[in-house]
Amino acid sequence: MIPRLKKIFSELKQEKLEGLLLNSAANISYLTKYLSRDSYLVISSQGNIYITDSRYTEEAKINLKGLATIKKINSSLFKTIALACEELGIKRVGFEERYLAFAEYQKIKSNLHKDVALIPTHSLVERLRQVKEEGELKKIRQAIKITLRAFEFIQDFLKPGIKEIEVAAELEHFIRYNGGCTSAIEIIVASGPNAAYPHHITSQKKLRNHEPVLIDMGVDFSGYKSDLTRTFFLGKITFLFRKVYNTVKEAQERAFRQIKPGAGVSKIDTAARQYITQKGYGRCFGHNLGHGVGLEVHEAPSISAKENNTLESGMVFTVEPGIYLPGKFGVRIEDIALVTQQGLEILSGVINK
Amino acid sequence: MIPRLKKIFSELKQEKLEGLLLNSAANISYLTKYLSRDSYLVISSQGNIYITDSRYTEEAKINLKGLATIKKINSSLFKTIALACEELGIKRVGFEERYLAFAEYQKIKSNLHKDVALIPTHSLVERLRQVKEEGELKKIRQAIKITLRAFEFIQDFLKPGIKEIEVAAELEHFIRYNGGCTSAIEIIVASGPNAAYPHHITSQKKLRNHEPVLIDMGVDFSGYKSDLTRTFFLGKITFLFRKVYNTVKEAQERAFRQIKPGAGVSKIDTAARQYITQKGYGRCFGHNLGHGVGLEVHEAPSISAKENNTLESGMVFTVEPGIYLPGKFGVRIEDIALVTQQGLEILSGVINK
Repeated sequence: MIPRLKKIFSELKQEKLEGLLLNSAANISYLTKYLSRDSYLVISSQGNIYITDSRYTEEAKINLKGLATIKKINSSLFKTIALACEELGIKRVGFEERYLAFAEYQKIKSNLHKDVALIPTHSLVERLRQVKEEGELKKIRQAIKITLRAFEFIQDFLKPGIKEIEVAAELEHFIRYNGGCTSAIEIIVASGPNAAYPHHITSQKKLRNHEPVLIDMGVDFSGYKSDLTRTFFLGKITFLFRKVYNTVKEAQERAFRQIKPGAGVSKIDTAARQYITQKGYGRCFGHNLGHGVGLEVHEAPSISAKENNTLESGMVFTVEPGIYLPGKFGVRIEDIALVTQQGLEILSGVINK
Repeated sequence: MIPRLKKIFSELKQEKLEGLLLNSAANISYLTKYLSRDSYLVISSQGNIYITDSRYTEEAKINLKGLATIKKINSSLFKTIALACEELGIKRVGFEERYLAFAEYQKIKSNLHKDVALIPTHSLVERLRQVKEEGELKKIRQAIKITLRAFEFIQDFLKPGIKEIEVAAELEHFIRYNGGCTSAIEIIVASGPNAAYPHHITSQKKLRNHEPVLIDMGVDFSGYKSDLTRTFFLGKITFLFRKVYNTVKEAQERAFRQIKPGAGVSKIDTAARQYITQKGYGRCFGHNLGHGVGLEVHEAPSISAKENNTLESGMVFTVEPGIYLPGKFGVRIEDIALVTQQGLEILSGVINK
């Protein structure tokens, strides 16, 4: 049996659950090592059933051979799920409360035999996914490598008169010609005042001289993601930009210094936030410091002042302080950290050619 | 007041609801005419409150001026939602049962004052969105125009030895240089046997001579989407390919002939499916005939044999029969239909230069 499934079964046992219904594509992909879309998976010690529609049944049969039986949705998805539980003979079935919509929960419940209990579970698989295995790290490293090369490539392309959307076009093109499967996020190219919006929608605006260009992008490599941000500057760097940039950079470094196994997650966020606040920009850094990266671009752990978890070796997350000055510009620097037994490896630190 | 909101308020009245909590980005975007991400909206006749995090508050303030008050999520999203309901003085609040996750429903409920009832609603906004207004059609037409041009452009590029992923790269590039904001879907480029998987993941496989190349792509233009599929062939067309292609084409035409206001949706699907079955390929066409297109690539109405709705003037949806021969190849042809008072306009029928 796949060790990941084994771990989940032992968790299920603790909660006295006989099976688990999954509907998060990332969680299903993690447990089956097959990039799943639009599917449901019921796991139990009696066997696993993968439920999907005709668009995917052929490829699922090949990829899940020996691991799960494939059931094509016939008249009703909810009946198919109920039948799967019946077939496996499970009476206490967990479901993913973060992903199952209220309406689906109701419909599945009403289709299940009245003896079957449907019980909410929280982040069972997400918790496992926080600590990366060697094979996963390899893919994340590759996604990061392609992203760093894309940043190198694009620097020569950034010139006054070029549109934000054209910069995104070149990056999308580069990713696919350099081993990436696709973009992991909608690429953000935000120039001048647009960079003051942390999640600006890349527009037809032209780059101008003496303006910053913030680029937030990621690559999907075999299902694993990267997510990095660089803030460039065209022309003569202004005093204010340099000051803000250096503040963000130093804040990031202070956060890095806190990273090691056992450290409190909130401390990492606080280290960066306190420094930015000290420099007078506390109100200009609204978002969390970072988030886990893996099969999803945003996953656990969340690196926020509110979290009270501690870091473990093998965790991978972004460290991305930012300062946003409405009407003026913004700076964000986003790198990816891996917690190691020794402390920290900045996965996006050096381009490994 | 925006007429769209007015329509929703009259629906709420019928259900004896004093307010509605929305969490579908597309539904919120529809009601506010602002491309919303990661947000919640509470609407009521007393006023509207838009809840989001610091990444979006600045742009939301500008875009929703006069329409909604912006509340930044502070310590807890769920408390912020509860406070918004309190502020508006609403006691019977609907929510979107298709989009709110079970866990969120529970948390919002437990934060609401015990006098406040949280009541599931189903597709209130989605039903409105089915019938497009002139301004929406204009954007959809533009998204389709860019997609058709992309298909024209790519034909010269398709040659043996080129990788599927490189074809996708060129299309992504073309879209952004030709007025599109982004790709509306992950572009599918499926060549040879890969085309037998309706939702193939574009790969490093090289195109080969005497093989079909199926391309399924869409464009996002100002939030509105297109979704079209063309199946090309490299080299000398085989007898089997021609037969399958012509069958799919004829099936699509038979479906088109059924489209007019008042026609049963299931009839459209059946017209195509019966023809494909007659020709012996019934088991090779598993998916529905089509789906609505608008702010989302897949929205209402679903064009399926199971639906018992009827068509209305202003509805926009894909008509996309396909035949998939495992291990061999597949053919899908996907166009977009607009139901008009006269009957049908095939929006993707002609390139309007």
